[in-house]
Amino acid sequence: MPKPRTATAADADAPPRLSVRLDLGAGLRIGPGKVTLLEEIGRSGSISAAGRALRMSYRRAWELVEDLNRGMGTPVVETAAGGAGGGGARLTAAGEAVVQRYRAIEADTNAAAGAHLEALARIRQG
Amino acid sequence: MPKPRTATAADADAPPRLSVRLDLGAGLRIGPGKVTLLEEIGRSGSISAAGRALRMSYRRAWELVEDLNRGMGTPVVETAAGGAGGGGARLTAAGEAVVQRYRAIEADTNAAAGAHLEALARIRQG
Repeated sequence: MPKPRTATAADADAPPRLSVRLDLGAGLRIGPGKVTLLEEIGRSGSISAAGRALRMSYRRAWELVEDLNRGMGTPVVETAAGGAGGGGARLTAAGEAVVQRYRAIEADTNAAAGAHLEALARIRQG
Repeated sequence: MPKPRTATAADADAPPRLSVRLDLGAGLRIGPGKVTLLEEIGRSGSISAAGRALRMSYRRAWELVEDLNRGMGTPVVETAAGGAGGGGARLTAAGEAVVQRYRAIEADTNAAAGAHLEALARIRQG
């Protein structure tokens, strides 16, 4: 889901970072796109609003949520009655756990990788 | 570069893992595909052989190497005279550093994320 982007001069000064994808087995993979979508659903209370905010089609947003529900074996998002686009949506406890654990992993791994990232950035600039 | 794959029953028993993508700024991103390609070039001494081993077109393998050379601002692979497919190829010190640092980051981050990954796997199974 990362959008194509163009390198700018400012990027050269950005600190080196890493992004992570979790592979939980049985084909379940969780990366920044799905996690950002869950966060946006939690914020907006709506899958369609979350999709719009992330410039993602409603169909695509639903597919990602379904992929997570199926992969986790338990719903990460609950929808209220009202059908497509009608009722609201909220994160379940499992959905909240996915978001919180992913963001914790992101922070911990960036801290763990800091020295290596700095070393690579030094090689790049030299 | 990860190939599409089909989930199998065995996957359910695989330990949860994470994969990392490094963002070194200025549009330079390094993930498992580029690193595996560098390793295969180092092993085989040839960009074309490495591409074949990874079921990647020669053109695609060259593009990834060029992307790394340009992004790092210094060559990660040196090719001997002989032109396309002719001469051999070997990793430079910068190329070796990319491979070693990436694999170290992978090991360190998996260790750092272990408890969170286990917690997510427990939610999934429960």
